[in-house]
Amino acid sequence: MKFVTAELHGRTFIGLIYDDNYVIDIQKAEKKLYEEEFTPSSMLQCIELGDKFVHQIDTLMELVEKEKERESYVYPLADIKLLAPIPRPTKNIFCVGKNYRDHALEMGTVEDIPKHVMIFSKTPTTVIAHEEQIDPHLHVTNELDYEGELAVIIGKKGKRISIEDAMDYVFGYTIINDVTARDLQNRHKQYLLGKSLDTSCPMGPFLVHKSAIPHPHQLNIETKVNGEIRQKANTEQMIFPIPEIISVISQGTTLEPGDIIATGTPAGVGKGFNPPKLLQSGDIIEITVEGIGTLRNTVKAKS
Amino acid sequence: MKFVTAELHGRTFIGLIYDDNYVIDIQKAEKKLYEEEFTPSSMLQCIELGDKFVHQIDTLMELVEKEKERESYVYPLADIKLLAPIPRPTKNIFCVGKNYRDHALEMGTVEDIPKHVMIFSKTPTTVIAHEEQIDPHLHVTNELDYEGELAVIIGKKGKRISIEDAMDYVFGYTIINDVTARDLQNRHKQYLLGKSLDTSCPMGPFLVHKSAIPHPHQLNIETKVNGEIRQKANTEQMIFPIPEIISVISQGTTLEPGDIIATGTPAGVGKGFNPPKLLQSGDIIEITVEGIGTLRNTVKAKS
Repeated sequence: MKFVTAELHGRTFIGLIYDDNYVIDIQKAEKKLYEEEFTPSSMLQCIELGDKFVHQIDTLMELVEKEKERESYVYPLADIKLLAPIPRPTKNIFCVGKNYRDHALEMGTVEDIPKHVMIFSKTPTTVIAHEEQIDPHLHVTNELDYEGELAVIIGKKGKRISIEDAMDYVFGYTIINDVTARDLQNRHKQYLLGKSLDTSCPMGPFLVHKSAIPHPHQLNIETKVNGEIRQKANTEQMIFPIPEIISVISQGTTLEPGDIIATGTPAGVGKGFNPPKLLQSGDIIEITVEGIGTLRNTVKAKS
Repeated sequence: MKFVTAELHGRTFIGLIYDDNYVIDIQKAEKKLYEEEFTPSSMLQCIELGDKFVHQIDTLMELVEKEKERESYVYPLADIKLLAPIPRPTKNIFCVGKNYRDHALEMGTVEDIPKHVMIFSKTPTTVIAHEEQIDPHLHVTNELDYEGELAVIIGKKGKRISIEDAMDYVFGYTIINDVTARDLQNRHKQYLLGKSLDTSCPMGPFLVHKSAIPHPHQLNIETKVNGEIRQKANTEQMIFPIPEIISVISQGTTLEPGDIIATGTPAGVGKGFNPPKLLQSGDIIEITVEGIGTLRNTVKAKS
């Protein structure tokens, strides 16, 4: 199950990707098949429903498969506007720093390989959708960089979650570009400002339910800039795997449905090259995570 | 104008402190005097109304002053339960690190005095009210510490705010105890985890409108633990004053109504003493900021 938050004719709805290139408008399908809508119109509300929501979709899809007249609720993917799966998170996005060994090394020395999970955050105002433009913020940064990451979406409330139970608290996965202003990141020591420029959290295109990704630590992840491969890794290389991240955060901090955890970026960020390959206006960044899709964004032209 | 978010008989309402020891239930007063309620029941909505909200209250208070039968909407402060002024912020709380020179020195050396504003955050799940208990989280920390701070509440949306215009974006002020797990803060490098234990952001008791605090950089600030003065300073000692903090954050990050910025803590935190005076179960922490009031919380007994 790949979900989208989408917009068509000014209406926001939750959609399900169908046959790769189509989207089922879930509420409209329910209206047609049940004469009643069960699915909320925000992803956060759907996630809060948890397993109930997923079962509803399973049941609905059995009916959809049998139906012949679907044009009232199935649209070509190309015709709709995708929003970020969670357009406005209810708190900052949790981000794991230096969670791939080679990335820690390209940013420093062996001293920079963390011994404990390092967590910082991005404000909710950073979130943009697949295909939306990244503002280069030329008035505050000369070192805008990309970071392709697998992001975990929390499905239910929990505290002091054990490593063994952690995956039960996952709703699904998406892709995040943890766009970073390296100069601000260094100048202000704590990462928040360098990580929180407006538009610096492209997210999407899809939120994939965990049932479709049984092995989240065996996913190829690749970032291209203008077609050139910059990051190429596999999520098996994470220093701190997802259950450990969830467990460590939740020891003192309650996790809630809809919380987003970006799991860190592999080697190959712009700042890691010599000379650096930082982002420029017009650059196209494409992040592909196996089983999810490709998140594509362009850096806006100078204004 | 001192506002509270309060609860009485299970109903949450916005109140105005009156004659120091009383609270006016604003909606009930409007109902009695206008036969209609204008004020929303959440502080965030009131802040979004901005000047309009403040003018409404001014007008209402002129009528209240003339009225004799006020018992239907004026309650003794002692009879109501105070919630945090903003019980659930819509993003993490922005916090300024090491914004008082002597505090930077007690935590390290002259190298630790920041040259640029250092910003980190606390999750919204940390917020508790005046008189609510701080969970010692003994299973994850042995180094729980207090930090008394003046907090700024943003009143309107802005980006690239100049230092000159910054105070126009302030709605008012409150007090925050930036409770910190020093061991987690150090272990995880980035501060988020050590700053985000549930209950680690006592806030209140009042949100004071800026009109009542014309000189926010001339306020005495004092923290007592079990009656012993630990922190004693004046907000004039901030390294980065409020307009600079607002301006720096907003250069790349949109600020929104209801955003909270804790402006940093003076010298005298528990970890700064030799030997350290860290928090223990049963400790009573009282933070007084001139013109606002006293925020008091107790560390919960071991369970």
